[in-house]
Amino acid sequence: MWLITAGPTREHLDDVRFLSNASSGRMGYALAAAAREAGHEVVLVSGPVDLPAPAGVEVVRVTSASEMLRAAAGRLDDAGRCDVIAGVAAVCDFRPRVRQPGKPPKGAGPLQVELVENPDVLATLAGLRLPRGEGGARFARFTVGFALEVLGPADLDLEAAEARARDKLERKHLDAIVLNGVETLGAAVARVFWLPRKGARFELPPMTKEAVARWLVSTIEHELDE
Amino acid sequence: MWLITAGPTREHLDDVRFLSNASSGRMGYALAAAAREAGHEVVLVSGPVDLPAPAGVEVVRVTSASEMLRAAAGRLDDAGRCDVIAGVAAVCDFRPRVRQPGKPPKGAGPLQVELVENPDVLATLAGLRLPRGEGGARFARFTVGFALEVLGPADLDLEAAEARARDKLERKHLDAIVLNGVETLGAAVARVFWLPRKGARFELPPMTKEAVARWLVSTIEHELDE
Repeated sequence: MWLITAGPTREHLDDVRFLSNASSGRMGYALAAAAREAGHEVVLVSGPVDLPAPAGVEVVRVTSASEMLRAAAGRLDDAGRCDVIAGVAAVCDFRPRVRQPGKPPKGAGPLQVELVENPDVLATLAGLRLPRGEGGARFARFTVGFALEVLGPADLDLEAAEARARDKLERKHLDAIVLNGVETLGAAVARVFWLPRKGARFELPPMTKEAVARWLVSTIEHELDE
Repeated sequence: MWLITAGPTREHLDDVRFLSNASSGRMGYALAAAAREAGHEVVLVSGPVDLPAPAGVEVVRVTSASEMLRAAAGRLDDAGRCDVIAGVAAVCDFRPRVRQPGKPPKGAGPLQVELVENPDVLATLAGLRLPRGEGGARFARFTVGFALEVLGPADLDLEAAEARARDKLERKHLDAIVLNGVETLGAAVARVFWLPRKGARFELPPMTKEAVARWLVSTIEHELDE
């Protein structure tokens, strides 16, 4: 089973207002569709997006990061095994410490919102498996994350972005990470780099998210076969 | 010309994170389509939504409340005259005081975000006309707003919601206000009350947003004829 997260999360201040980001969910949905077309069983845990469920894919719809983690971890427990975890969702790092009920009326003057850190969905899911080399069964055979960075025009910017993405790969115990630019958010065409744990950076030529998804599926399948 | 605002606004903390709400834009887009079908020239100033431009409607796409106000006020200036202003957008009341560039890395521990009040788009647009009774030309012949309230099951809740909506009507110098429930956000069917400045509350029977839009257009046309 391939477990894929997609879309943004929403972190509510009250019943109306929330913190979020512009993730369209397209990359995650495309990856789910491509994995399904390649014959895999796919569970897609999706934040709020305006996309239909890809054919043959079980979609679990959630709102917040906490719900996403709970839903995804629940699928792991039920399934027993998991081939791939792909954390494509643009999970909000922070949520308001307090969610107020209803829609509080507009107050006067400046307002402070206290934020607290969200659980790291992918790192937590990736950490559910036993450490490498200890002989235990790995829960997911392959875990891949996505890193969203501002990719400047200079090579130095890219080097710095890759360093941050590889740091994330280590911190989250991933097998590979996909680095893409902030301008990718909500766009149809993505600028994408593949960073495997053991191996050099590979830049994909400009292509649609659907094409990136098919490339990722065959690359991950290749890694699983090794 | 009918000037209609629609959708949510997004108030960015940085290039990735923003404050927003779940407005789908459907009510505003439906109103724009219905007004156009009734033969009116329509300009739709729209926050970020996933809806196509209604046929024959000029759509001006914006992100933040400040941009929405600027774009809408700019259309008023260009057009010289305006028949109707309909503020259907769910404009964010507040924005972060500072927008940070890029995507700041996740820090450690709690974080404070300072918010400041946004300009009131509809009140400002409605205020651009001369006060009633001073003999000056009114900029818009009819101004209608929308009030989103938590409508509880009890009549008392509804009375309180109507009082708050009528307060808003006065504060913003509107001719009428449409009261709807928070559960309407993003939904296809709306529970809607029409509150004219001079006249009693009227509850529309449950119907789609498209039907509500057609009802509103003919009601506003009737008011304009009087």
